[in-house]
Amino acid sequence: MATVPKCREAILSIKPYVPGKPIEEVQRELGVKDVIKLASNENPLGPSPDAVQALQEASDRIFLYPDGNCYYLKEALAAKLGVKQENLIIGNGTDEILKMLAETYINPGDEIVVADPTFSEYEFAAQVMGGRAIKVPTRNFRHDLAAMAAAITPRTRLVFVCNPNNPTGTIVGQAALDGFLKQVPPSVLVVLDEAYSDYVTAEHYPNSLAYVRAGRANVIILRTFSKIYGLAGLRVGYGVAVPEIIRDLNRVREPFNVNLLAQVAAVAALKDEAHVGKSREVNSEGKDYLYSQFESLGLKYVPTEANFIFVDIQRDSREVFRQLLQKGVIVRTGDIFGYDTFLRVTIGTRRQNETFIRALREILA
Amino acid sequence: MATVPKCREAILSIKPYVPGKPIEEVQRELGVKDVIKLASNENPLGPSPDAVQALQEASDRIFLYPDGNCYYLKEALAAKLGVKQENLIIGNGTDEILKMLAETYINPGDEIVVADPTFSEYEFAAQVMGGRAIKVPTRNFRHDLAAMAAAITPRTRLVFVCNPNNPTGTIVGQAALDGFLKQVPPSVLVVLDEAYSDYVTAEHYPNSLAYVRAGRANVIILRTFSKIYGLAGLRVGYGVAVPEIIRDLNRVREPFNVNLLAQVAAVAALKDEAHVGKSREVNSEGKDYLYSQFESLGLKYVPTEANFIFVDIQRDSREVFRQLLQKGVIVRTGDIFGYDTFLRVTIGTRRQNETFIRALREILA
Repeated sequence: MATVPKCREAILSIKPYVPGKPIEEVQRELGVKDVIKLASNENPLGPSPDAVQALQEASDRIFLYPDGNCYYLKEALAAKLGVKQENLIIGNGTDEILKMLAETYINPGDEIVVADPTFSEYEFAAQVMGGRAIKVPTRNFRHDLAAMAAAITPRTRLVFVCNPNNPTGTIVGQAALDGFLKQVPPSVLVVLDEAYSDYVTAEHYPNSLAYVRAGRANVIILRTFSKIYGLAGLRVGYGVAVPEIIRDLNRVREPFNVNLLAQVAAVAALKDEAHVGKSREVNSEGKDYLYSQFESLGLKYVPTEANFIFVDIQRDSREVFRQLLQKGVIVRTGDIFGYDTFLRVTIGTRRQNETFIRALREILA
Repeated sequence: MATVPKCREAILSIKPYVPGKPIEEVQRELGVKDVIKLASNENPLGPSPDAVQALQEASDRIFLYPDGNCYYLKEALAAKLGVKQENLIIGNGTDEILKMLAETYINPGDEIVVADPTFSEYEFAAQVMGGRAIKVPTRNFRHDLAAMAAAITPRTRLVFVCNPNNPTGTIVGQAALDGFLKQVPPSVLVVLDEAYSDYVTAEHYPNSLAYVRAGRANVIILRTFSKIYGLAGLRVGYGVAVPEIIRDLNRVREPFNVNLLAQVAAVAALKDEAHVGKSREVNSEGKDYLYSQFESLGLKYVPTEANFIFVDIQRDSREVFRQLLQKGVIVRTGDIFGYDTFLRVTIGTRRQNETFIRALREILA
């Protein structure tokens, strides 16, 4: 083999992300036609029709670069969230903001503190910058905030609280978060990933925006249009923090990171409260249905505040995954999170949930 | 002011990118209604109608995550370019691939070699990773390849050849590039940024894909859908290299970096050869027209192989820029490239070119 320019040592240990299998890939590879995907926590109702219309109307403008400043989207978000435009940064999905956070704060040898299990992209971003993730085991599938605070060292730059947590669906409440923040030094930035916040029904869920409104400098809140807003395919997420944090993140931002149609569709989706309400309802009904089905199957699950359920199927999840795939149902295996007998299943429409349960019953029978 | 978590020292010296002013911003700020933008080298004919149709048809699927592997786009590109899918990486615009290159190869203190002037994002990406750009002055607005080869040190990781060069529009020919590559050590990756290659008419322009097809390991070719394909708003660019390079770049790639509609539209745009042909024609006619107008105005310009012209207006370009803006014409000032009396103007449609020349004549009169 020819000599190849050598990549950085730091990135050799990165494990490739395991995405939910795309529907088209399953259709292509297995020749299955009817495929339902409950693997990536997408909105089973699809996008807001207003968002689709808005992007279609804007589609003759795609030859122009997008507004690098996302003016109209920031304007709409600022009004909705009760913050200023200077409190906002928009990304090519929250994924990109995670990378920007690492690029802004992580030098080689620096540390981040994360729960285990949690969303894997926090560690990925840190690793790209030569950083290291200190993983703090969850207790009863919940963030162990006391242990996470204790894991902070002088090398800690970022602490991630995924709230609700992916893949467990559990939340950290207001009082617990208040207490935790008191223990975190001002030099450490606390990243509150609220990708699934729109599904939360628990009353003690934190009002995190109040931290930013009050000028708390070491908190950033991440949200996304990929979940309840149904725009995962367009890639748009955002961060909310004090202007000084936003200014530093902007140093590493690519000039045209958010595409034009994503900006237009996100503005429209934000205004379509009816679609969000309906999505919440479908999720709530689906949750009750799946809970009762799991119980009748004798399966333990983690009660969820999100749009997915982490369920213990009491056998090798990769095997069950493969059998579900044959029946046209895509879910996520727990092994990638360190739980070999668990599945993470997205709450779908009534029909999708029933198809999934029917398939699961056949497999477990 | 409250203590704010400190960002990395390395990124403090990054100069913010100066983008072409968005049309909407000019309309908003100046209250000018008819605005033409000749600032960002977009395709004045707009996107391929086939691309617009394809994305509109796909727009009910935007609630799903995009295919992280860009299967269908890679399939189409591989067929078109005569390479394999494993030779390809797709990015959220070429901008993102530039960042991935830096993340893959640049450790703090490492160097890149670039021309001066050239596209500023090469240096930006290196700076994010703590790298340093060694800038080699152009000679007669052309890459000085001998001096660039001489600037390579043991710390050099990447060498950028922007071909045609932005903002000068000049090219490096086949023989010159062949000779240059012989001087570059195999440990240094040569990045051939061919964003504007579709506009080139010179016969000695390099057939760079042949390097990759022949297995040359230290070359990567970058191309984009933002220019002749008219999809700047969607953000999609790609890199072509040997599989080992692609594998290493994929280590740092975010799982869903390319949005769904960009993938669909790019496949359609690629097939619409009529639109590309027409765009080339409009560019060629516009080039002749602008050349003759500049000549009659007594202005020197750099003959271009791209869709923009670097022209010396012999006075402060920022002042002329402001006056053009008042008349509804957005161009780019040369000062950001170190040429205070130059403008970089995109070749537009006949009507746009005439509007620009009329405004310029009034200002220079």
